[in-house]
Amino acid sequence: MEQMKSVKVSPRDLAAFCIAAMRKSGINEEDARLTAEVLVTTDTLTTFTHGTRQLRGLLKNFRTGRLSATAHEEIAAEGPAWAIVDAHYAMPPAVSYRSMELAMRKAKACGIGYVGVKHSSHYGAAGFYANLAAQHDMFGLSMCNVDPCMTVPGAKGKVLGTNPIAYAAPAGAEKPIYLDIATSAVAATKIFSAKALGKQIPDNWLVDEEGMPTTDPSQYPAKGAQLPMAAHKGYGLAVMVEILTAVLTGAAILSGVKSWVADTTEPTDEGHAFIAIDIAQMMPLGEFKARMDGMIREIHAAPRAKGTDRIYLPGEIELEKRDIALVEGIALPPDVVASLRGLAEDVGVDATQFNLNLGK
Amino acid sequence: MEQMKSVKVSPRDLAAFCIAAMRKSGINEEDARLTAEVLVTTDTLTTFTHGTRQLRGLLKNFRTGRLSATAHEEIAAEGPAWAIVDAHYAMPPAVSYRSMELAMRKAKACGIGYVGVKHSSHYGAAGFYANLAAQHDMFGLSMCNVDPCMTVPGAKGKVLGTNPIAYAAPAGAEKPIYLDIATSAVAATKIFSAKALGKQIPDNWLVDEEGMPTTDPSQYPAKGAQLPMAAHKGYGLAVMVEILTAVLTGAAILSGVKSWVADTTEPTDEGHAFIAIDIAQMMPLGEFKARMDGMIREIHAAPRAKGTDRIYLPGEIELEKRDIALVEGIALPPDVVASLRGLAEDVGVDATQFNLNLGK
Repeated sequence: MEQMKSVKVSPRDLAAFCIAAMRKSGINEEDARLTAEVLVTTDTLTTFTHGTRQLRGLLKNFRTGRLSATAHEEIAAEGPAWAIVDAHYAMPPAVSYRSMELAMRKAKACGIGYVGVKHSSHYGAAGFYANLAAQHDMFGLSMCNVDPCMTVPGAKGKVLGTNPIAYAAPAGAEKPIYLDIATSAVAATKIFSAKALGKQIPDNWLVDEEGMPTTDPSQYPAKGAQLPMAAHKGYGLAVMVEILTAVLTGAAILSGVKSWVADTTEPTDEGHAFIAIDIAQMMPLGEFKARMDGMIREIHAAPRAKGTDRIYLPGEIELEKRDIALVEGIALPPDVVASLRGLAEDVGVDATQFNLNLGK
Repeated sequence: MEQMKSVKVSPRDLAAFCIAAMRKSGINEEDARLTAEVLVTTDTLTTFTHGTRQLRGLLKNFRTGRLSATAHEEIAAEGPAWAIVDAHYAMPPAVSYRSMELAMRKAKACGIGYVGVKHSSHYGAAGFYANLAAQHDMFGLSMCNVDPCMTVPGAKGKVLGTNPIAYAAPAGAEKPIYLDIATSAVAATKIFSAKALGKQIPDNWLVDEEGMPTTDPSQYPAKGAQLPMAAHKGYGLAVMVEILTAVLTGAAILSGVKSWVADTTEPTDEGHAFIAIDIAQMMPLGEFKARMDGMIREIHAAPRAKGTDRIYLPGEIELEKRDIALVEGIALPPDVVASLRGLAEDVGVDATQFNLNLGK
């Protein structure tokens, strides 16, 4: 039986453990290092559903042949401000890291850069790559298509992925702004949580097997499907992500995308899209950052709703938690601890060698 | 008293009347022609709130000096794949038309192009410019910031504009896909309509003057504020639009933006952002269009929800209505007819000379 306890770890130790687990699985040093950076950073932002919890599943994909430890992505086609990258099913977060870096090089050359990626799989949290651009004083946009789990207006069943959109922009004295959202009404974890607690859900999260809105979370995922955020608006944005990440890149589209956690040997074939804008070419960077700070401060200073202490900018809550995690360590929730313990067993790495006490 | 009747007009006659009204107001021929194309096309798509109904208000802005008939936009700065355009308060739809064309030229040169516009005003429907790119076999994105009328999570009162996002992409045998949405929960017209009918509204459209969700539409717009679509998700996307259209371009930010219909001589100073992607550089155009058609057909063929006859792609309903309008004429709703009648009186143009019977 799993121990249901939270464990506090230092980001450095957690990264070292993840790198060791990947190296043991045949992943090269650079890919392991970049992937650990993606996943551990996501944990520091407390987006635990998309952090190191996912490494166990990713490495399983290498053992089943859905991903390849010896593969390396290559540029399939490119121009001054764009490239299409064939991921060749190499380690997705590492491929995505380098693809956003490529988008930034294109932006450095031309002002804006677009990089589309095909033949990839789960890349972790979309927000990581957007933030990477912001750290380099660029505006960053990151998108991914995923296997269908959402219906569309008028349909029933799973038609479209919950295709995430993330962006980030640097500020001056204030924290950068970033947003990382699925285009579904809510994260599936909220549905599962209500299901586990036997609670009803709002009627705009799910449809039942007839395609009718339901407040009963027990139908999902076996039957029914998630609803897009804001009805036709989320539907339309999810289709935009499908166009930029898959139709335009050569990746699989809609039902052609296979779940990265599915028990199959078929490749996932997700697509990604990365856009970077080199701010300093368009406006002195100091001026841009002062303007960002001005906007942030005006929103912070807005009259507050009854009972509210503070108004947050997009990403601010997560970035504050990250500041704490970098000082005090990351408080990994029990499900993450259990996943890391399973990972250690899968690949035969001793977590205690990395100061991680994952229990038994 | 206004006649509450709908009037059927040919797009050509309507455009000729609009051009005459603009020419009479000192607008040059090209600006008048492009603006008429923007507004009349929007009417053919039945987005009547943003079509020729707005010309009367736009021309009023020229009389009050908030816009200038003798001004012409200029490129303030540019690079291989980008430009910042200073609109100089010239006719906003014409400036925006040429700015999307400039983004397309940048995309033709580099693959992707970004054009930001500052010192502008109301540009009509965001979707027009996105569709313009799609008509040229490009992916198009169009955004605009507007004066604050929306609150943000934790705040009360009007903090942020309902900043629209529109995109479009061409298909093959199928219709192009396009989406044109405000980042608010609903269009303000729906709130006003419920108010006029004395009806309650869902509790995620508005907050009252304390910042609490309300089902009473009568508070707005004097008190209270609109809510973003999908709570923090719409908030985050509206902030993204503010960054790309205003922070990065030099346009006014948040409360610095003045309503284009306000009774003031202060400039509106809205910003716009246009992004074009030249598809054919990345993938043979025929292949892209076939892939778009495949995606569209898979969505069309999805199992339908109980009681649903058809599943629509984003923009499909509007594009079908446009097909009908191009054959049978545009059925202008009474409020549009009334606005055009007022326009004819304002500028002294006889609508009957253009086969338009707007009543009295």
